[in-house]
Amino acid sequence: MSRGLRVWQDMEKEQETLRAWKERVARELDRVVAFWLEHSHDQEQGGFFTCLGRDGRVYDDLKYVWLQGRQRAGSCLSLHTGQGSRAHRPPSHGGEFLLRYAQVAPPAKKCAFVLTRDGRPVKVQRTIFSECFYTMAMNELWRVTGDARYQSEAMEMMDQIVSWVREDPSGLGRPQLPGAPASESMAVPMMLLNLVEQLGEADEELAGISAELGDWCAQRILQHVQRGGQAVLENVSEDGEELSGCLGRHQNPGHALEAGWFLLRYAIRRGDAKLQAHVIDKFLLLPFHSGWDPEHGGLFYFQDADGLCPTQLEWAMKLWWPHSEAMIAFLMGYSETGDPALLRIFYQVAEYTFRWFRDPEYGEWFGYLNRDGKVALTIKGGPFKGCFHVPRCLAMCEEMLNDLLSRLAPASALSARPPPAGPARPGAE
Amino acid sequence: MSRGLRVWQDMEKEQETLRAWKERVARELDRVVAFWLEHSHDQEQGGFFTCLGRDGRVYDDLKYVWLQGRQRAGSCLSLHTGQGSRAHRPPSHGGEFLLRYAQVAPPAKKCAFVLTRDGRPVKVQRTIFSECFYTMAMNELWRVTGDARYQSEAMEMMDQIVSWVREDPSGLGRPQLPGAPASESMAVPMMLLNLVEQLGEADEELAGISAELGDWCAQRILQHVQRGGQAVLENVSEDGEELSGCLGRHQNPGHALEAGWFLLRYAIRRGDAKLQAHVIDKFLLLPFHSGWDPEHGGLFYFQDADGLCPTQLEWAMKLWWPHSEAMIAFLMGYSETGDPALLRIFYQVAEYTFRWFRDPEYGEWFGYLNRDGKVALTIKGGPFKGCFHVPRCLAMCEEMLNDLLSRLAPASALSARPPPAGPARPGAE
Repeated sequence: MSRGLRVWQDMEKEQETLRAWKERVARELDRVVAFWLEHSHDQEQGGFFTCLGRDGRVYDDLKYVWLQGRQRAGSCLSLHTGQGSRAHRPPSHGGEFLLRYAQVAPPAKKCAFVLTRDGRPVKVQRTIFSECFYTMAMNELWRVTGDARYQSEAMEMMDQIVSWVREDPSGLGRPQLPGAPASESMAVPMMLLNLVEQLGEADEELAGISAELGDWCAQRILQHVQRGGQAVLENVSEDGEELSGCLGRHQNPGHALEAGWFLLRYAIRRGDAKLQAHVIDKFLLLPFHSGWDPEHGGLFYFQDADGLCPTQLEWAMKLWWPHSEAMIAFLMGYSETGDPALLRIFYQVAEYTFRWFRDPEYGEWFGYLNRDGKVALTIKGGPFKGCFHVPRCLAMCEEMLNDLLSRLAPASALSARPPPAGPARPGAE
Repeated sequence: MSRGLRVWQDMEKEQETLRAWKERVARELDRVVAFWLEHSHDQEQGGFFTCLGRDGRVYDDLKYVWLQGRQRAGSCLSLHTGQGSRAHRPPSHGGEFLLRYAQVAPPAKKCAFVLTRDGRPVKVQRTIFSECFYTMAMNELWRVTGDARYQSEAMEMMDQIVSWVREDPSGLGRPQLPGAPASESMAVPMMLLNLVEQLGEADEELAGISAELGDWCAQRILQHVQRGGQAVLENVSEDGEELSGCLGRHQNPGHALEAGWFLLRYAIRRGDAKLQAHVIDKFLLLPFHSGWDPEHGGLFYFQDADGLCPTQLEWAMKLWWPHSEAMIAFLMGYSETGDPALLRIFYQVAEYTFRWFRDPEYGEWFGYLNRDGKVALTIKGGPFKGCFHVPRCLAMCEEMLNDLLSRLAPASALSARPPPAGPARPGAE
């Protein structure tokens, strides 16, 4: 067999595998979207039910605000990508509910963490996350409906969030205690970078204004690479040093991987190849290799950078979202670099994920597995799991797989180069 | 063989089993106390290290206040029971540290949840529990040292706690939200009843004054028996009705069993046989039978009263403290009633506990097992586990086993009656 033929056969095989995954992912996205469309809409009182059992039955009618915002944003997301045409096109369901009830004591911007079915606040967190998902939802609603009221809500809330993070956190209600170290959780700049990217995507003027904020977020996230580049730590001091004790040693591989693809998009947008390589090395490969369970497969939820036992009871459990984030991160890494090692890891994570998290019977994924892969909680939605990570992962992977296939298709049988590196997503330049 | 001989042989066998358990428990108590004495005392800055790894090494020097108070109280407890003579008699170590640093902003009484090694507050919970364990420690210190300063601290804090619980919780710092149902966690009256019992034990005048408070606590705990007596629910409405959703269906078998022996002591003290029977039925047998894992043994951590999947990730894990509380509860139930069914359950729980939680290598028990009994976390101490439940359980069980054996010893070989029912603990009348 000639070398040319072998190369051609290899490429054919690779295309076949990619195509098979694209089809698998597309079918799964349809099933997942159908699950949430069928079970989560509260037709009487607005908003979304988020506490759904294995078969979609509502086991609690509380409405968690992170998930109200995320589902609202996620349903819109599926309209940007190809999904809108295939799936049932959702109305602006959920947006008015959020607008009306999320804020606990307007005009103050603090949002509830959870609401009763009819919108009365039950609990408020002393963090920025409800507000971030609110902003995300409002911005997405504006993009879909064109209603300026939504965008002005998004921008006002964004200003408030930035002010809490960069100027004065006292409005969040957490007391400043003399023994609490001034620390930064990676979740905060990570979440902000994600918002900046989303808000800038649809608004060029805003993209310019928020460039400084994006740079600030990226720099803050990068400070979490510690120990001479050997570990991503979830919490560091305000000036980027390792903190003492469990807080300082705490690692969250899923967060590192999620931050990884946020940073990767940021590097692509800036055309910064050096940063891109650094991000793949430190935020994709490092947490994957240290966070993957060598015995049972899957990513640990938490780890201790010194290899000590974490104090969180769930540290060795396998959660759905680190796996969906890893799928996005490695497929994005491969799309940009053509490095086959990244594609192999995508396949490894996707195989594990589809084998253990998917529920072939009722649709949507299980969220919580024991270390050995057995289902620990049968719920499909709960206080922290809703219509967000799974459809976002599947929609983004479908889009990336489509792009990869369309780039591979016209390749000459004899030019055995990998798919072209560089910005590949539409509008990513 | 004559009937008399058979009965005599049965009784001999029962005494042998009780004696074997007494010795096992006593040896284990020595090992457990030795572990904490060796590893937890901070000789430089006072107080106790509470974050200890499997072999006792300090993996974080934060000092959790629940455990500062509990260890202080527990070390004193071992002086009341026979342990003081056997184990190293601890000095009043830890008391001054608590007195000096626990309160966040004196003269306000709110205590920290966790302190730095040198006593600066890191975190404050919006509950009464740090304050309860502080009170317990101060009262115990007074009983051991006779220093009136400790008792006046205990009494002042107790007044504050009662005022937060019965009059105005606003000082705890939790905002009142219109969607949050006015609910009561069983932990609150349970903890208060325990304090009332402890404070009254050593002070007859106080026992009289606090009788009303004890009655109130007992009535509030009893309200958590719901569904026509078929379930103990962890949260009920202020007026004793079932709450909707997960909050209302939430069950914590370990808490029910712990409340069980608090109530049992209360019933014994009052000589209320009807209440005693009710408590054994509803707070011992009911949670044991519904909470015991039929597949792997051990008590589930959380359950849903409708049999739905709980939303807590750790719901199916086996924690040390529900098992130590169950050992106390069933041995106390047997001591008071002579019902052999209760003794059989004590043996069942104790066998499971000694098999899976004990660490024969380094001493003290593991705290957190997977559903199948395998160790999930190797730590011996952490934010919620310290020198408290295990030594309390072992010291109380040793004392009860001693009492049972001394009551059985003079029994005639031909009078085959069970050990005498009724108040058996010294001072319990």
